Amino acid sequence: MDKLALIPLNNIAITDAFWNKYVELVKDSIIPYQWDILNDKHEGVRMSHCINNFKIAAGRISGEFNGVIFVDSDLMKWIEAVAFSLTTHPDKELEKTVDDVIDLIGEAQLDDGYLNTYYIINGLEKRFSNLRDGHELYCAGHLMEAAVAYYKATGKDKLLHIAQRFADLICDEFSEEKNSKGYPGHQEVEIGLIKLYEVTGQTRYLKQAKLFIDRRGEEPNYFAEEMKGQRFKQLFDEFSDYDPIYSQAHLPVRKQTTAEGHAVRAVYMYCAMADIAAMYDDAELLNACERLWNNIAYQRMYITGSIGSSGILERFTTDYDLPNNCNYSETCASIGLALFSRRMAQITGESKYYDVVERALYNTVLAGIAMDGKSFFYVNPLEVWPDNCIPRTSKEHVKPVRQKWFGVACCPPNIARTLASLGEYIYMNKGNNIWVNLFISNKTHIDVNGQRVNIDVQTNFPYDGYIRIALDCEKALAGKLYIRIPDYVKKYKLHIDGKILDDINVEKGYCILELDFANKVIELEYDLQPCFVRANPNVREDIGKVAVMKGPLVYCMEEVDNEPNLPAYFVNSSLPLYEYYDANLLGGTTVIKCDGKKVKQDKWNEDTLYSEKNIEYEDKTLTLIPYPYWGNRKHGEMLVWIKEYM
Amino acid sequence: MDKLALIPLNNIAITDAFWNKYVELVKDSIIPYQWDILNDKHEGVRMSHCINNFKIAAGRISGEFNGVIFVDSDLMKWIEAVAFSLTTHPDKELEKTVDDVIDLIGEAQLDDGYLNTYYIINGLEKRFSNLRDGHELYCAGHLMEAAVAYYKATGKDKLLHIAQRFADLICDEFSEEKNSKGYPGHQEVEIGLIKLYEVTGQTRYLKQAKLFIDRRGEEPNYFAEEMKGQRFKQLFDEFSDYDPIYSQAHLPVRKQTTAEGHAVRAVYMYCAMADIAAMYDDAELLNACERLWNNIAYQRMYITGSIGSSGILERFTTDYDLPNNCNYSETCASIGLALFSRRMAQITGESKYYDVVERALYNTVLAGIAMDGKSFFYVNPLEVWPDNCIPRTSKEHVKPVRQKWFGVACCPPNIARTLASLGEYIYMNKGNNIWVNLFISNKTHIDVNGQRVNIDVQTNFPYDGYIRIALDCEKALAGKLYIRIPDYVKKYKLHIDGKILDDINVEKGYCILELDFANKVIELEYDLQPCFVRANPNVREDIGKVAVMKGPLVYCMEEVDNEPNLPAYFVNSSLPLYEYYDANLLGGTTVIKCDGKKVKQDKWNEDTLYSEKNIEYEDKTLTLIPYPYWGNRKHGEMLVWIKEYM
Repeated sequence: MDKLALIPLNNIAITDAFWNKYVELVKDSIIPYQWDILNDKHEGVRMSHCINNFKIAAGRISGEFNGVIFVDSDLMKWIEAVAFSLTTHPDKELEKTVDDVIDLIGEAQLDDGYLNTYYIINGLEKRFSNLRDGHELYCAGHLMEAAVAYYKATGKDKLLHIAQRFADLICDEFSEEKNSKGYPGHQEVEIGLIKLYEVTGQTRYLKQAKLFIDRRGEEPNYFAEEMKGQRFKQLFDEFSDYDPIYSQAHLPVRKQTTAEGHAVRAVYMYCAMADIAAMYDDAELLNACERLWNNIAYQRMYITGSIGSSGILERFTTDYDLPNNCNYSETCASIGLALFSRRMAQITGESKYYDVVERALYNTVLAGIAMDGKSFFYVNPLEVWPDNCIPRTSKEHVKPVRQKWFGVACCPPNIARTLASLGEYIYMNKGNNIWVNLFISNKTHIDVNGQRVNIDVQTNFPYDGYIRIALDCEKALAGKLYIRIPDYVKKYKLHIDGKILDDINVEKGYCILELDFANKVIELEYDLQPCFVRANPNVREDIGKVAVMKGPLVYCMEEVDNEPNLPAYFVNSSLPLYEYYDANLLGGTTVIKCDGKKVKQDKWNEDTLYSEKNIEYEDKTLTLIPYPYWGNRKHGEMLVWIKEYM
Repeated sequence: MDKLALIPLNNIAITDAFWNKYVELVKDSIIPYQWDILNDKHEGVRMSHCINNFKIAAGRISGEFNGVIFVDSDLMKWIEAVAFSLTTHPDKELEKTVDDVIDLIGEAQLDDGYLNTYYIINGLEKRFSNLRDGHELYCAGHLMEAAVAYYKATGKDKLLHIAQRFADLICDEFSEEKNSKGYPGHQEVEIGLIKLYEVTGQTRYLKQAKLFIDRRGEEPNYFAEEMKGQRFKQLFDEFSDYDPIYSQAHLPVRKQTTAEGHAVRAVYMYCAMADIAAMYDDAELLNACERLWNNIAYQRMYITGSIGSSGILERFTTDYDLPNNCNYSETCASIGLALFSRRMAQITGESKYYDVVERALYNTVLAGIAMDGKSFFYVNPLEVWPDNCIPRTSKEHVKPVRQKWFGVACCPPNIARTLASLGEYIYMNKGNNIWVNLFISNKTHIDVNGQRVNIDVQTNFPYDGYIRIALDCEKALAGKLYIRIPDYVKKYKLHIDGKILDDINVEKGYCILELDFANKVIELEYDLQPCFVRANPNVREDIGKVAVMKGPLVYCMEEVDNEPNLPAYFVNSSLPLYEYYDANLLGGTTVIKCDGKKVKQDKWNEDTLYSEKNIEYEDKTLTLIPYPYWGNRKHGEMLVWIKEYM
């Protein structure tokens, strides 16, 4: 299958008011902050030990391995983020820092290509003996992704060679010839190998990725066999009753019909499945991807584009089980869902996949990071009452305040690399055709059959539905422009060079404009009036409730703008919502208000827990702000799904 | 303080339609069934290993200890249940079985009095080295309770002597003289020691119980110190980050103001605190009991009389945090709450304590056992959707179907001993005064100042509010009869010998009748119309919802009587409830119906998870049955708190 191509990051300059405050954060704050953390230079923040482990593995210092078993990957995601950032914001000093740490990584690598500080420090006799929990292949995948990104950004191939040497070892170790049946407990190396193949052209990497995918879930189950081995050692207490469904190894991937197990593992695997389906023209595999994507998007995804309903094992549970105050909804899982959905869009050209990309990016991914870039949510609840998020209880995993760093710190660098590569999400291209997926102000040039097409998008989306797309190229160039009509846009107008277009050709959720790219101005007016949204009544948790959305943005109530006890509010959804832009709030945002009532609490004494008495209400105005911005002011309650009058 | 006395069990014969089906179950089904389980004679049921461990400890057979560390206590609770049952239903064969097992227990006991099969089999050098998790004192407490009950029932003192020998060892080992600072990780021995004191008159037992209570939570914390010891060994993985609040050892008990930690431990401790407060006239301790009881009853208790909001660590969380579908609400915790509340009623004579006793007994305790006596709930949710009670998820602890036995099998024998001792909950007595607390048909005789007063209560409570109390004694005897007016009774009539009483003297929630006990008939008519009940709006989970109650009985919807997706029902609470008795349903019960609506689900497609469309409703009748009877027919969803129209 011929995928639609992404546009190289260095062709794209984001000029967007909504996004730039985050993209700037990456280089100004997140990258230096995370570098300090990787080096254990932040007091009062949980120690990472990451660089220290590399120094020990490289023999520069002596000491013991510390930190989580997969802490190497934090450095790799950081390098990937830096690479993306350097593409658009060159920085010689930062590049020098990366070059130095690449030297360190190279020193830590063994002669045979093996590279994992946990096993190098703790004993190589155990390497590859516990693929289920060992995370060596997971870290390897992130190494490969980082290496590819850094090579593309700088042309420097030292890290690429390090990654290739490790990839070669992996391809040897897990080859069919060696009769290995192994595959990773945490998927990621498949993505890395595919990217390595795309850059190097070495098909053995692609084949190895496919092997890992094809083997997964075959009988006899590899993880069950592995546990019987002499060399196997349990690494995590919580896996004493391991079920292969946790890592999507319960069935061959082509036979899987529902999204199961650990959500991040699942979506990382689906990414690789989609890539391989396209590259091998594997209709059965693509079909599995579509089925799994549909199951997520239509039965197992929060309105905020997050996934993973259970705090225990960070996993999918069952269709329509979407509790709001004890969900996991890991930031990384939404990143993975966006990556999977983007691949599906590239393969199919269907806009529904970008509806999910956009939902995940605008809500959960952004909620994962504070507006100062220095604290993070790993778990993204839709309802928070800080009082009951008590350690050692069922809601212990829900943090009402963003944390500075985590023992398992996958999310912060993952957010950084996502924001730094935001440009890659905007366009797709094939032949003379260009797809516009997201509405983010930017200046971009795309090479269309040897000609350079310049695109200049200007918009205040998502606060305003007006989008101006200016196209230009040196000489006349006929092509098609596909502009995504998001699922939430019910009404829109389209002008070309000032003239309204009456008859709009829409296919697969994109309006298609056949035009000459030279000196063309397209103006879109999307109706982004805020609206009430309801969940399918099979979602038991949301019955009788509404959420408020404006375009892709989910809104929420925060205690700081309202009164305590947010679940005591009832909104009158038959009255209009009203909105206003507040330039001084949260870096400038649109606030939404609506009319409703709240239970009168003063009618209830402290010594009355249950009573036959009636509930009394008082009229109240409800104030909502965008979900991604919650928790950036005074801490307190937060609520997405609000009760409505019947 | 002079407590109101309980009436000995052998004075009381229960003749009640509602309760007798359960009381009969104890002797006919539960006692023999549990005996078989203790002997590992049930196929397909999790092995108990209990009797086997005693045989190994006694040297009758060889082998290894198996089962949970505190499995000895299952036998002790079973003996206690048998003792209560023998009081009212003599059974020579059963008594012989108990005598034989007492011989076995005696053989297992060491010369110095020590008795715990786990440590006897696994190595005595560790005994008393981990009071936090070792459960030796917990098992000892249940031994003492069983011994006292069996002695009272049969006059046989062999088990009593066994218990005393162990109690003497405990008093030596944990005496002030020995400078021991220890106290149990799981409270229970305090109750046992107090009962042993009451029967033997040996004050050292009472003093030791008081010592355990007084020491608890003092600095330096005993459990923290214990962990530093050479002999300490971690017994449970989940306690690697132990917090003393888990076992109410975070503060001295007199300074505790909120119910914290593991719910069963808490209420067992409060029982002992209440006993000691009364016996030592310790106003400060009684004050602590009142404060803790108020905190439970007015901020931390479910409408079903259950406690423990968190599935993790089976613990209290925070005020008004009462989630309905992921709570713990252990059956044993409600039993403990009833025992604590009964003690408070004995001390204070206030009926509010019996409101909680009744709530717990009629709802959670009964829900804990199937109507055939052969399966049990450990966890008692108020809302169940079986589809999402998936292993290895946040709702894993919620079982939508009663289980035959448990690895940790505290609840089944605890229910058995509670049902077998139900008679003890009905009356209290002091001087010439008699208190009637619960409305259960029974024939009882009470010795009032040397005279025998016969009481015959006849009622169909809780299905009918008519209660006939016939009193008689040989010659005229002036006294007061205190009849509890439950908190849910808003209207009532009272007749004495057929004449209505207009001016009723009510104090502390009891109406007080000064009368001659000879040949007197009192007739009560309590209004037990079913009604809608609401929770204090601080209970976020229950806002916008009502529960249906009839007298002390909480009602619930089950899928078998309604349609799937119970949370999609909305009840019209402005319309009357209607009820009817169905003799063929669930052994005969009153069904309640009400009018309402249900969301029309067919308006939503499988591929629509979120949408702006309106919700449509259709009129529906809701059918409810008593909460204790749920899960006795076809399995499916269950719901207590129902949404109401605004």
